Amino acid sequence: MKLYEKYPVYLTNSLSRSKEKFEPLTPGHVGIYLCGPTVYGDPHLGHARSAISFDIVNRYFRHLGYKVRYVRNITDVGHLENDADEGEDKILKKARLEQLEPMQVVQQYTNSYRLAMAQLNVLPPDIEPTATGHIIEQIELTRKILEQGLAYEVNGSVYFDLKKYLQTGQYGKLSGKVVDDLLVNTRDTEGVEEKRFPLDFALWKKAQPQHIMRWPSPWGEGFPGWHIECTAMSAKYLGVPFDIHGGGMDLQFPHHECEIAQGMGAFGQEPVKYWMHNNMLTIGGQKMAKSLGNFINLQQFFTGNHPLLAQAYSPMTIRFFMLQAHYRSTLDFSNEALQAAEKAMKRLFGSLKILKNMEHPGSPQQGTQDQALNHFVDQLYQNMSDDFNTAKTLAVLFDMSAKVNEFNTDKSKLKEAGAEAFNRFKESFQTFILDVLGLHEESGRGHELLEGTIRILIELRKKARAERNFALSDKIRDDLKAIGIQLMDGKDGEINWTIE
Amino acid sequence: MKLYEKYPVYLTNSLSRSKEKFEPLTPGHVGIYLCGPTVYGDPHLGHARSAISFDIVNRYFRHLGYKVRYVRNITDVGHLENDADEGEDKILKKARLEQLEPMQVVQQYTNSYRLAMAQLNVLPPDIEPTATGHIIEQIELTRKILEQGLAYEVNGSVYFDLKKYLQTGQYGKLSGKVVDDLLVNTRDTEGVEEKRFPLDFALWKKAQPQHIMRWPSPWGEGFPGWHIECTAMSAKYLGVPFDIHGGGMDLQFPHHECEIAQGMGAFGQEPVKYWMHNNMLTIGGQKMAKSLGNFINLQQFFTGNHPLLAQAYSPMTIRFFMLQAHYRSTLDFSNEALQAAEKAMKRLFGSLKILKNMEHPGSPQQGTQDQALNHFVDQLYQNMSDDFNTAKTLAVLFDMSAKVNEFNTDKSKLKEAGAEAFNRFKESFQTFILDVLGLHEESGRGHELLEGTIRILIELRKKARAERNFALSDKIRDDLKAIGIQLMDGKDGEINWTIE
Repeated sequence: MKLYEKYPVYLTNSLSRSKEKFEPLTPGHVGIYLCGPTVYGDPHLGHARSAISFDIVNRYFRHLGYKVRYVRNITDVGHLENDADEGEDKILKKARLEQLEPMQVVQQYTNSYRLAMAQLNVLPPDIEPTATGHIIEQIELTRKILEQGLAYEVNGSVYFDLKKYLQTGQYGKLSGKVVDDLLVNTRDTEGVEEKRFPLDFALWKKAQPQHIMRWPSPWGEGFPGWHIECTAMSAKYLGVPFDIHGGGMDLQFPHHECEIAQGMGAFGQEPVKYWMHNNMLTIGGQKMAKSLGNFINLQQFFTGNHPLLAQAYSPMTIRFFMLQAHYRSTLDFSNEALQAAEKAMKRLFGSLKILKNMEHPGSPQQGTQDQALNHFVDQLYQNMSDDFNTAKTLAVLFDMSAKVNEFNTDKSKLKEAGAEAFNRFKESFQTFILDVLGLHEESGRGHELLEGTIRILIELRKKARAERNFALSDKIRDDLKAIGIQLMDGKDGEINWTIE
Repeated sequence: MKLYEKYPVYLTNSLSRSKEKFEPLTPGHVGIYLCGPTVYGDPHLGHARSAISFDIVNRYFRHLGYKVRYVRNITDVGHLENDADEGEDKILKKARLEQLEPMQVVQQYTNSYRLAMAQLNVLPPDIEPTATGHIIEQIELTRKILEQGLAYEVNGSVYFDLKKYLQTGQYGKLSGKVVDDLLVNTRDTEGVEEKRFPLDFALWKKAQPQHIMRWPSPWGEGFPGWHIECTAMSAKYLGVPFDIHGGGMDLQFPHHECEIAQGMGAFGQEPVKYWMHNNMLTIGGQKMAKSLGNFINLQQFFTGNHPLLAQAYSPMTIRFFMLQAHYRSTLDFSNEALQAAEKAMKRLFGSLKILKNMEHPGSPQQGTQDQALNHFVDQLYQNMSDDFNTAKTLAVLFDMSAKVNEFNTDKSKLKEAGAEAFNRFKESFQTFILDVLGLHEESGRGHELLEGTIRILIELRKKARAERNFALSDKIRDDLKAIGIQLMDGKDGEINWTIE
């Protein structure tokens, strides 16, 4: 029996607004598409939350035994300011400001995104397609929608004909928006006169003379609309329909709503079976915004180099903190909350270290603790299979951690556990921390050894002082200082050390 | 005066077979295109040599004050077996063997290439375009060559018309091949009947039904030829003509020869001003080949996990070893040579550490050593400006290293050097090692501190033994053993340590 049969996954489908049992389109296989970054700036917390949320989905499905194809794109053209159909391309604007060729901007921020994702231990996607790398596919898709009579060309641009689409299709069902409300709220914007209906959106835009990212098309030189790229790339690499489409909640409208319309328009069917969305985050209770001065990028978190940060927070602290909340909950960042996360994670790794070195005596094969131990493991799976609830999974790991300490304090307790149950408990604790949640200890073996040798020196020094051998105790302090390690006497007689 | 004016660069242009003074097409700017990997397997020494050779070119031009745009592509389609016009696509073949979607193969080996390059401290290119991301550009270019009457279509494929081209152009001038000789050596291959002339090469190939990497084109569904991609991408990002085109010597023919023909055909001018080629390498005197069992990939070098390797060689050892030879020389890998490189590099970093901590007393402003010190620095530049001669530059750095040791042994010598000359000497030594040659110390601060604390414990233990305090000396040994550090008594009374 496969793990995914034993612990079937239930997930919240944004489309149905309910938790549904996950049934893959092809047994044993899962196709996932996640909207990746628009690469015109350094990656920030929003990027991290989306990538980590779906990294968990990817990791857990793999752990359960599914064969996963995980596609996460890079948006390197067509995403205009304010997510609109008019205005400047975000990348072109950055290129203009930095006096670079647009693809240099793309390369620079794609690199910084990939670096941050690696630091956060986010597994790389199986395929990382770029929008500029799939212009032909986007042109073909636009052509298909035109053929279906659901788009029209005006002055070298092609727009999706939403009014026509509404005769048979729905628009707003994913985001819960109502067309009439949307119409009221649509502001007149430049170029809107080309559209037959205010909610129509661009599939292809004619390039103005100054627009340097441009390609030939049946409608003249231009560039693709933002929404069409994800439909083109997901269809190419995952087929139609595919299992899971993910993204941040802010992408539900208009981006994902338009993807559904395009999919229906081009293929005559719902393109995606399950839509999943991670929620937004705030900093100190406020929305992140450049104008509020609380826009902190990931490298600033990792180095502590921002006025709002009390200290540096390591990538794993950020990751752990995010996993403490369910991906569908909002999440507020504060120094206090991050410091608490840092401490909690240290405790968890402390238990992991103890458990790694703990061996069961071999007998008995069964014991009075077995039921409790197996229950822990089942809870890990049940929580993860319940819409990837990492918050509850971490809570179980902390309960397990208490059990580890109990075994450690009182070794006789270990004999109350059967070998098989203990080993399953041990292996699951480790697997869920390292592989499923993707956490790892950051200090590493080198730091451990350094800590160990300094501890030996501190103990020797304590002993020397107790024996009033001040020559030796001073020598140890001075020798350490000479290589850059400072000993500090704590109030309770404890000695700490820092690297200068 | 800019550094590049003071130390103008001379480089060997493969096209003229002579050393030429480098004169950029746009003053102060350099455009460089390097043929990147075909991503169907793990990166090996050949990839490393090419990337490192042109990383040096890139780094040195930047150091001299040029504004560089460095483009290195990823070949993810169209490169057929045996570099031919018939046969299976290398990536499709791998995808078939590994039962993966071709773009998954591409992603996997692109990731492993990027990882190895980062380990080797190769700077990422400013733009890293992919062949599949530029199909439109390749179609447009093919169309242009057709329009010039230098290509013809047969059964949905388009071939470059070499016979026609030879009426006005030259083919073979880069590689030194003679057309008549080539004709004699051309074997009949499948599909050759489509070609009007045996040396014609494919610009666009019709996709057979089983060929899943395919795009629509004016000539039906197909895929681009291998040679056209580099012409399309270099023209897009660097213009026509551009300054420098690099690659391995094995790419001179037919790849680069075809690029010249395509550039002449499409643009009516030489596409590249300077062609640079790095030479090939051998392992134990033999050509690297899977059939000879001496095909060692980079991660195998880094881990030592290959029967031919006596030990692991760090990325910096590989880099240092390659820099010991001029990029146009052949290079033979052997355990002995790599071990010698490892030792030499350690010596160099030893001197760097000493020099970093060495401060000039401030006066005199001038001294009797100044001429010698300045001469060292000039030699660094002269050697690098002489066709990027890293071998000679390293030799100068070792001479400088001897001078550092002289200052260190006899501090009074330092007063024979003027402050300005000494500081220039110091800064240049560091800059050429770290920035120009791109070497860095791998053990890092953590290792240094660990080494330092263990040294203190070893000294304490020596003293304890001398005082016949065996309780203490045993305790130190046992405490270290408990945390995983083993002390070993050497023959000359020296004590070494290892991590268990």
